[in-house]
Amino acid sequence: MGKKVLVAGGAGFIGSHIVDRLVKRSDMDSLVVVDNFWTGVPDNLAGITDPRLHFVQCDVENFATAEKFDEILHLASPASPPWYMREPVRTIKANLLGALNLLEMLAPGGRVSFASTSEVYGDPKITPQPETYKGQVDCTGPRSSYDESKRCTESLLFEMHRTQGVDIRIVRLFNVYGPRTRPDDGRAVSNFLSQALTNGKLTVYGDGQQSRSWGYVDDIVDALERYFWLDDIDYVGPLNVGNDREVSVIDIANYITQLVPGTIVEMCPPIPQDPTNRRPDLTLCRKILPGWEARVSYEEGIKRTFEWFRDTVMKGAETEAPSPIRL
Amino acid sequence: MGKKVLVAGGAGFIGSHIVDRLVKRSDMDSLVVVDNFWTGVPDNLAGITDPRLHFVQCDVENFATAEKFDEILHLASPASPPWYMREPVRTIKANLLGALNLLEMLAPGGRVSFASTSEVYGDPKITPQPETYKGQVDCTGPRSSYDESKRCTESLLFEMHRTQGVDIRIVRLFNVYGPRTRPDDGRAVSNFLSQALTNGKLTVYGDGQQSRSWGYVDDIVDALERYFWLDDIDYVGPLNVGNDREVSVIDIANYITQLVPGTIVEMCPPIPQDPTNRRPDLTLCRKILPGWEARVSYEEGIKRTFEWFRDTVMKGAETEAPSPIRL
Repeated sequence: MGKKVLVAGGAGFIGSHIVDRLVKRSDMDSLVVVDNFWTGVPDNLAGITDPRLHFVQCDVENFATAEKFDEILHLASPASPPWYMREPVRTIKANLLGALNLLEMLAPGGRVSFASTSEVYGDPKITPQPETYKGQVDCTGPRSSYDESKRCTESLLFEMHRTQGVDIRIVRLFNVYGPRTRPDDGRAVSNFLSQALTNGKLTVYGDGQQSRSWGYVDDIVDALERYFWLDDIDYVGPLNVGNDREVSVIDIANYITQLVPGTIVEMCPPIPQDPTNRRPDLTLCRKILPGWEARVSYEEGIKRTFEWFRDTVMKGAETEAPSPIRL
Repeated sequence: MGKKVLVAGGAGFIGSHIVDRLVKRSDMDSLVVVDNFWTGVPDNLAGITDPRLHFVQCDVENFATAEKFDEILHLASPASPPWYMREPVRTIKANLLGALNLLEMLAPGGRVSFASTSEVYGDPKITPQPETYKGQVDCTGPRSSYDESKRCTESLLFEMHRTQGVDIRIVRLFNVYGPRTRPDDGRAVSNFLSQALTNGKLTVYGDGQQSRSWGYVDDIVDALERYFWLDDIDYVGPLNVGNDREVSVIDIANYITQLVPGTIVEMCPPIPQDPTNRRPDLTLCRKILPGWEARVSYEEGIKRTFEWFRDTVMKGAETEAPSPIRL
């Protein structure tokens, strides 16, 4: 008998790339994808014709089934500040109530994999951040619904592991970008690309010196695939996954203005509690996933993402820039 | 029309002292107390005959009613490590799903008050801890179900305040002790008193130098009463409430051996992730609640608690010491 697999958030940006990899498995009998199209979109799964895939449009916290799953992958959550800051309660529900609900559907001996985030480190005082770093999160602040619900979901899963022996895999993803990022995602790369393709003005918040580790989605999903199901690993997490080349927001913006002639950078006031830096310590990741590296340079990754935006999303889209963030 | 008030966890240690104060109010029409007797006990409410009080035995996250409440006080959670470490998922549900459920019952313009904890500071690197301190919590550790569900519930309530204008009051309680602490609570004072009254051996974990701010319950509830409903305050929190006199565990143990002749101290291995210190910065508390102080000395508070244990709890109890903590 092959495996029964469930992916929550499987129509989302990262989730749908995971689904692309899952359907290549021969040891899988059925793949249930649950997504409510909050940030996911049907088009992300449009290319899949695998008859083993069953799609259910539903909030992860409300999904009900009598089936049990051998592998559950929980990627159902918005990941971009303007999205979770607009609907913080829904964000908490997706992560934590989602996890609680999914745990009910786990077959005995099954595995739950969870996409946590570098946001558990908050605005870090050390760089790069190793998994042992406890973080600097303001649990009363405007980013807290995401940061704290990811932290609390980690806690839930680690405690299920400690007290009930549930098999878990927890990754902390640093910034990921690439094809299938929403044009209205609200984070730097997609903002810049959408703006470059519409009004030509790239809005940089603050001085633009805040840096991020930008992980190209193919690299990141290579790691997830290996950690979640391919490799024989018994480390339950947490595991940093990302690109440890730190690039400032302003450098990305400038690179895109070179890529798209006629575009310019426009400076805007800073966003509250925008972390000043975020870079993964990948020591553990390189040990757990020997040979894995984030290989795609940001120049190459942004070029590919730009081409996808130009060819897919912006074709026929209104020539209107995404609205600036309102908090 | 008077107020409709709900207290979740109202048969618990602190909750029942809150109920004692609430029934003195003349502006209240009805008081619903919800408690599942997980850590609360019926005896804690036995002295109350107020006909406005309606008791419902129920998990806070499953309580259902068509009524709406003007004031909701959420104190439904175990607070002692052995209790929440044994049932971490239930702890997360009580706090967070409890809060989500209670928010559904809030009347327009109503207020939610929440008992958060100094555990949001984890094992702090600064002392005393002001409310702005972001904490050192290991969100994968064995204390995390409590720490992270309190943090995430704070986040939920602050975000409900930010995005929907819900009126909230969040306190972070430091160690509280006094009459109605469970003899099997598992924290130092009640352990020592139970042990003093049974086998006479007071078990101190680690070197006993870990310190706590021990707040006597009457002092603490004085502050809660003022902050939650009595005083006209528009600060939503977070507000540290506690005693800022730091006393080491070994000093408490030694004091009790003096109080109860024939008892001795026994040293045991340390508990994992037991914070080394915890002391509230009360600057804000003294500003928000002018004139309030924790007045009861630990010597006096422990004497009163000892007398309550001796006269109430241990009378007729089996002469058996509470089991040591097993993790």
